[in-house]
Amino acid sequence: MRIALDAMGGDHAPEPIVAGAIQAACAEPELTIVLVGDQAQIEPLLPSGPERARLELFHCTQVVGMEEKPVEALRRKPDNSIKRCWELLATRKVDGIVSAGNTGAMVAGGHFLKRFLKGVLRPGIAAVLPTAKGLCVLLDVGANIHAKPEHLFQYGIMGSIYARNILQVENPRIGLMNVGEEEAKGHDLARGTHHLFAQASGSLRDRFIGNIEGRDIHKGAADVVVCDGFVGNVVLKYGEGVFEFLMKIIHAEVLSPLQAERHLAERALHELAVRYDYSTYGGAPLLGIDGACIICHGSSGDRAIKNALLVAARYARAHLNEIIIQELEANPPPATE
Amino acid sequence: MRIALDAMGGDHAPEPIVAGAIQAACAEPELTIVLVGDQAQIEPLLPSGPERARLELFHCTQVVGMEEKPVEALRRKPDNSIKRCWELLATRKVDGIVSAGNTGAMVAGGHFLKRFLKGVLRPGIAAVLPTAKGLCVLLDVGANIHAKPEHLFQYGIMGSIYARNILQVENPRIGLMNVGEEEAKGHDLARGTHHLFAQASGSLRDRFIGNIEGRDIHKGAADVVVCDGFVGNVVLKYGEGVFEFLMKIIHAEVLSPLQAERHLAERALHELAVRYDYSTYGGAPLLGIDGACIICHGSSGDRAIKNALLVAARYARAHLNEIIIQELEANPPPATE
Repeated sequence: MRIALDAMGGDHAPEPIVAGAIQAACAEPELTIVLVGDQAQIEPLLPSGPERARLELFHCTQVVGMEEKPVEALRRKPDNSIKRCWELLATRKVDGIVSAGNTGAMVAGGHFLKRFLKGVLRPGIAAVLPTAKGLCVLLDVGANIHAKPEHLFQYGIMGSIYARNILQVENPRIGLMNVGEEEAKGHDLARGTHHLFAQASGSLRDRFIGNIEGRDIHKGAADVVVCDGFVGNVVLKYGEGVFEFLMKIIHAEVLSPLQAERHLAERALHELAVRYDYSTYGGAPLLGIDGACIICHGSSGDRAIKNALLVAARYARAHLNEIIIQELEANPPPATE
Repeated sequence: MRIALDAMGGDHAPEPIVAGAIQAACAEPELTIVLVGDQAQIEPLLPSGPERARLELFHCTQVVGMEEKPVEALRRKPDNSIKRCWELLATRKVDGIVSAGNTGAMVAGGHFLKRFLKGVLRPGIAAVLPTAKGLCVLLDVGANIHAKPEHLFQYGIMGSIYARNILQVENPRIGLMNVGEEEAKGHDLARGTHHLFAQASGSLRDRFIGNIEGRDIHKGAADVVVCDGFVGNVVLKYGEGVFEFLMKIIHAEVLSPLQAERHLAERALHELAVRYDYSTYGGAPLLGIDGACIICHGSSGDRAIKNALLVAARYARAHLNEIIIQELEANPPPATE
């Protein structure tokens, strides 16, 4: 199993990125990681232990900045690390790629190289969220902001395969993000998507639980929630903001006034913050791509990178893409009259 | 000052609704509240004190259920309390209306009676959110899910007037909810709206700070944030869900293990929950309506209803609608080529 890692992508790259790669190589003896980026910066960070043999270096000279316009940057910088990762995937030199760099450039890289899986209309980024009952896959969270009902229909299928095979949810319930529970609610995209799922065949229709509202996600009302990339991206980032805001005021107003047990409470809050902070999750897979592609938060630390590499390896090993091709073929979007 | 209150609207109506009305009447000697609903249920809840004279009863026999389809229900139940509230406003028997009932029916009631203010293209519901730096007005959160750039442009103007006159923010900064900060980001609606604000005149353009992302709202990055009603509704409810989820796990994992100081910490968390729980805010104004219209959360308790009534009175007293008419006239949406 070989995974390419964009060693230059992320707010604090390359240090925590390379550190995550070393941890992943230690944790997974069958994993080889190709570190893509500036040799001069990466090499000094590599260890001397036995895992060194499974940490390869692929030198390139350019980096797409976190704030750069994706398409322009990919064109202007032909030797950038994101492009090189995609090329390694396209030429089957690696089974998957991981980056904490510019998300738009990662998505655009896949579009440029036409690395869509057979039958996929539009790839979508799937975020994994904690809920009161386990985990929930929310997609798309930013790859496809001009989504159509057929895209959301495929996201339901691909998200279910991810939930079943990576998150171990046996019969994932699919919900449609909407402004109310009744069938006729929402804009054309929501109504059109509802129609497609209601017309779908067998198990897919059975697993579709209809519209769900924003407040039901963290209650664990669905295992997979589909929406367009604009809504998903805004919601995901808004949730991050609420989380940060609450953690700060709870520390200031609930924990700070304590005396004897303040330290105990602070440790518990910190553990909880690490566990639920979206940025420490392993990363979000770009589903619908020929290969495993995991997009990480720009602020990812070593732990997040390590987890993302392990998820990418698990993704490739589980042959998720073969399952996606089969299930998309078995479930063409029902014809709309 | 006379405000009509839908005494039958809300998850637990009429008890907490009438209790809120009594509190508002006690707090505000110049306020008369018209309680709209079933006389037999409301009358026993009224007090015998001097404020009784400012609690009038307007009997009606029907109620739109919280889960009913708004338009259908308004048609099928001609004597429902929401419709009667709107009629009292339309005939100028009251200066404002307040309801914790079916939100869709409240919005539809305004559409039916064509109670739009002069120059307003589409009314929008404005939610007030707590941030690290004060309060932020987010609109629209559910009245207009098929929004156009001109609508969002007007929401920026109306939201600013609300922030300035009700929340005391002198020069409200207007942000556009988007998936990234760069000007060219987002879908057609976002780009079109960005264009309108960038072309606007004087102070309006100066106060427009461009795109903002979901995670910046609670940091206090803007005083007014505009978006379409689908995004706003989903975001608002998602935030509620994150809030509830975090409050529960913090109680279970951070506070429960404490011993000596557990009670102290629980009291602080409870106070914080009451202060920041979206449902205890006064309610959300439907801006762009001829009159003051405040829509409350279905779960509103007496405190929320009291605050909503006081906000409605303040809204009417500040002549907000006259200011809205003037500013919309002074700032027609710039022509798009």
